[in-house]
Amino acid sequence: MKAHVYVTLKTSVLDPQGQTIQNALRKIGYDMVEGVRQGKYFVVNLSSGLSSNAARAQIEKIARDVLTNPVIEEFTYRIEE
Amino acid sequence: MKAHVYVTLKTSVLDPQGQTIQNALRKIGYDMVEGVRQGKYFVVNLSSGLSSNAARAQIEKIARDVLTNPVIEEFTYRIEE
Repeated sequence: MKAHVYVTLKTSVLDPQGQTIQNALRKIGYDMVEGVRQGKYFVVNLSSGLSSNAARAQIEKIARDVLTNPVIEEFTYRIEE
Repeated sequence: MKAHVYVTLKTSVLDPQGQTIQNALRKIGYDMVEGVRQGKYFVVNLSSGLSSNAARAQIEKIARDVLTNPVIEEFTYRIEE
């Protein structure tokens, strides 16, 4: 079983890295780009014995406790059966 | 219009950062975690005037040319209307 976790900066937090990418893109001609935010992406493989509910609970705990800094980041996730 | 770009290391490329996270998770009791791979995640805002096909073409070009190192990384993306 595979879980995909997406960690992004909260919208209230400045993202200089994303800003830099946006500036670079505009400089080389991508004028249609109005904003870029960079985040992190994790693919977590879980043992196949887990029930869907247990997997969901574990991934939420892992994302909250380990993968995310709750002061400035938030996460979403998706379980792939 | 929003595009989500997911950049991951090719499966043949070692991911020491993901490995470290996996080791840390197992050490604190998450035995059900069989593997972790870390990637990057970008949210790109595009001007709303673009057609869906144009957006798709632009995002593929941006992902290939700027957001990804094609030697070791690959990407997928999703356009949110």
